[in-house]
Parts: sequence; structure tokens; C-alpha cells
Amino acid sequence: MPQPCQLIDNLDDFRAKPMRRVKLDAIDTNADGGLDKDQARDALNDCRHKLSNLQELLYAQGTQALLVVFQAMDTAGKDSTIRKVFTGINPQGVNVHGFKGPSSNELAHDYLWRIHAATPQRGKIGVFNRSHYEDVLIVRVKDLAPSTVWRRRYEHINAFERMLSDEGTRVVKFYLHISKDYQKDRLQRRLDNPKKHWKFDPADLKERARWDGYMKAYEEVFMRCSTDIAPWYIVPAEKRWFRDLLVAQVLVQTLESMKPKYPKPTFDPAGIVVE
Amino acid sequence: MPQPCQLIDNLDDFRAKPMRRVKLDAIDTNADGGLDKDQARDALNDCRHKLSNLQELLYAQGTQALLVVFQAMDTAGKDSTIRKVFTGINPQGVNVHGFKGPSSNELAHDYLWRIHAATPQRGKIGVFNRSHYEDVLIVRVKDLAPSTVWRRRYEHINAFERMLSDEGTRVVKFYLHISKDYQKDRLQRRLDNPKKHWKFDPADLKERARWDGYMKAYEEVFMRCSTDIAPWYIVPAEKRWFRDLLVAQVLVQTLESMKPKYPKPTFDPAGIVVE
Repeated sequence: MPQPCQLIDNLDDFRAKPMRRVKLDAIDTNADGGLDKDQARDALNDCRHKLSNLQELLYAQGTQALLVVFQAMDTAGKDSTIRKVFTGINPQGVNVHGFKGPSSNELAHDYLWRIHAATPQRGKIGVFNRSHYEDVLIVRVKDLAPSTVWRRRYEHINAFERMLSDEGTRVVKFYLHISKDYQKDRLQRRLDNPKKHWKFDPADLKERARWDGYMKAYEEVFMRCSTDIAPWYIVPAEKRWFRDLLVAQVLVQTLESMKPKYPKPTFDPAGIVVE
Repeated sequence: MPQPCQLIDNLDDFRAKPMRRVKLDAIDTNADGGLDKDQARDALNDCRHKLSNLQELLYAQGTQALLVVFQAMDTAGKDSTIRKVFTGINPQGVNVHGFKGPSSNELAHDYLWRIHAATPQRGKIGVFNRSHYEDVLIVRVKDLAPSTVWRRRYEHINAFERMLSDEGTRVVKFYLHISKDYQKDRLQRRLDNPKKHWKFDPADLKERARWDGYMKAYEEVFMRCSTDIAPWYIVPAEKRWFRDLLVAQVLVQTLESMKPKYPKPTFDPAGIVVE
């Protein structure tokens, strides 16, 4: 029986609650919600169909936007989640923006400058592969700025996301949660498969060595920056079909709550003659 | 029998030849190449599959980009062609950029300024829904600048596209060709269908009244700006399945000629241990 885009019935359990402490190592990275893979695939197809329709309404309406943020440790599957969830949606309505290390010109501005410039215009879905959260993650873990600098950023970020929300851009954020062992396995696969060598960077091993620091930094992000208007979801990401479905369901739920609809015409269609 | 992405065997007949005069009203807008719709659908699926693989190679290689330009009269199907051809390709590798009337800030710069800023980064496919060609089309037809100004733009544009090509960005351009009668029918459909009212703008009728001027302006574009390195294709667009297949075949052919491939690793995969 085809499964609707509601198969995971406890979505809210995966949402980080505002100002609540999160212990990442107590959260199962391999969870599958007791679901069956084939059922999940059916449900994902239904979610994609719904996303596609909601995207068209959002575009037609042209007054609201959706910003989707992905963060994760290397190999957790940010690229592949984006591909699985958004492939099949009209590419005209979706813009994916990947953030790498900032350029010297970007560093010459405040850290939100390049982020703000990449936010989606009204009518569109913007997807961030990494984001402004790196400025309280890698910057903290690698000590790229003093704590007095990065500590005050949680408040900037909440204020920035509040402004986006007030002005019509809904924000929803996903952390793809994997274990350090899982990452080891995935990195080894990249080394073993010549078609995946291009995805491997020896520098990734240095980030891996800072695993515990990253977990602590992420935990603080979820506590301080998961808000009612711009929530963080912590997505068990080792069962990839569960990961994709959870993200897709949250996106459908979010877009439905935005109630996009066709705008009323500003002219009288019956009164127009095409010569 | 599944049809491969080679069903249209005379692609080059649709390419405008450099410095040759084009008579648009002598080109059939309703051509179907003698093909069958079901065969064409099969072939389009094969093209999309190939595009998807070529996009991944382009992304992995990261040294070349592809810029795809769409121009057409209203209702010719720019949006729908983009949706049909690019849906199914990893959205992370494709950026669609729509150009509307320039803002006052954009007008305060040269006309190529906003265009250049939107060109794809290496590794990506950029799609322009309208483009710098509006600056020798609508600008000419509506007399928004004197002819001394727009006349010299053909040379600017060729030099700009030459620079892009020399620096790794291939350019390919499509004009979706319809008749004035076909447009009448499509505009009427938009008026008759409440779900399409948002696509209708009464101002479109004023552009329609300038049809002949636009045809003349397009003909000059094809003569002056279809070059060996950045060709224009004139796509019969009333049979939509033929239109989609022709565009997809040209894109596959273009990407194949760019020979994207996985880069060689800059490290020795066998010498790395993941701890």
C-alpha cells in the first residue's frame, strides 16, 4: 500500500527544544523509527510529490521564501541528502548554495555578509550546504577567533533569523547525526573507490581528530539557536533512507504551515481580449 | 525499444550559422522532425540520465562550467523547458537565474554587470531565463537606448562570451520559436484557467503588439551573436516534446564535447590510514 508523507509520526521528537541542553552521544545515530525501508521509499516519493506542488504554490504566491540549512560532520551525507530530497523539484524554484572557507574579500566583512547575500528571494527555496553556523563551529573548535568574539554570535544569529522570519523567509535547520565509527567507515570507502577520490581531502582527517570539540560546539548551537521560529532538527543519518524521509517530512510540514496559495489576479480575466 | 539520446539526427540544422541572415518566419514553429511523441519521451529520459552523469563529472572535475541561455517571446515555454530538461539533475549542480527588468542599482552599472555576477562557478551548470540579450532586444524594440548604444553591444557580447569560453565556461543559447497565433492561444489559456492567472500580466499584451519588431531584433541577434564557441539554436517550440528533446540533446552533445572527467587525486590513497 502506498505510504503517505506522514510515516514518521513523531517528527517533533527530533526537534531540539529551545534552551534545553542536548547530549549528542545519547542520541542514536542509526535510528530507523522501527520503519521498513520500502515503506519509507514510498513515503519519500509522496513527500517529493508534495514538495513539488508546494514549491509551485510558493513561487506563484511570491511573498514568502524557505531557507533550509544543512550542517554535519564530513561524510554524514549533506550532498546526498540534498540530492535525494530536492531532485525532482523544479530547479527554477530551488537554489543550493555551498559555503566553503571564506575568501579574503568575505573575511573583510562581518561573517553574516556573505550569508545574507545568498538568502533566497521570495517565492524560492534556498538550501545552504554549510552556513553561518560554521562561524560558531569551526571558528570555535579551531580557535580562529577568541571566545569573546564567537560567544556573542549566537545572539546575532537568532536576531538575523528572526528578521528573516519577520520579513517572510522561514528558516529550518538540519544536523545530520553520525558516529565517529561511521565516519571512519565512510572515509575508508572514499579511499577505496577511485570514483570517490575527488571527495577525499587529507585535511578532513585533521577535522576528524577534533571530533569531540565539534560535538560540544554543536550541542551549544542546538541549545542556543534552536528557536520556535527557526528550529534545529537532529537527524539520525546512518540509515540514509530514514534520514531522507525525516528531512522531507519536516520540509512538507513546514511548507504546509506557511499556507502558500495562488494569488488573486489584479485584473479581471474575463474583461481581457487577446488580439 | 528504448530510444537513445540521439533521436534527432540533424541537430546542426537548428544551429544559427555565424554571420548568416536568418528569416524567422521561414522556420517552422511546429516542426517535430517526423518523430513520434512516445519515442521522443524515451529519448528525453535517456538524455536526462546522461545529463545527470555528465553533471556529476563536471562537478567532480571542477575546472569547467556550462552556461545555458534561454530567450523567447512570452508563453513560448522557457519555464517549462527548464523544468522538463533539468528536473532530475542534482540541484546542487544547477543554478537557474531569472532576469527581470533591471533594478535602479543594476541600471547604475553597465548592462553586463548583473549578468557577469550570475555566471556559474566552475563545476556547475548555470541556466539563464532571459539574459544580456534583452539589452539588444527589449531595449531596441522599446527604444530604451539610442541605436548608437545598443548597436555596439553585439561586439561586447561576443567578446564577453569569448572571455567566458577562454576561461572555462562554455556558452550555449536557445531561442524557443513560436508563432504569433500560438501565443494568442496560450495567453487565452492563461486567462481561462484560474490556476494560471498569476502567470498573466496585462502588460504582456503590449509586448505582443511589438511582435514584428522583436522578430527583427532576434534575427539580428542570431546573425551577429551565433558564434562557433557560443552558438544559438533556434528551437521549434510548439511541439513541446520536440522542444524539450532538442534542447536536451544539444546539452548532452555540448557537455560530452567538454570531456569532463574525475580528477586524479593529489595524494596516494593507499598511503592513508583513517584512525
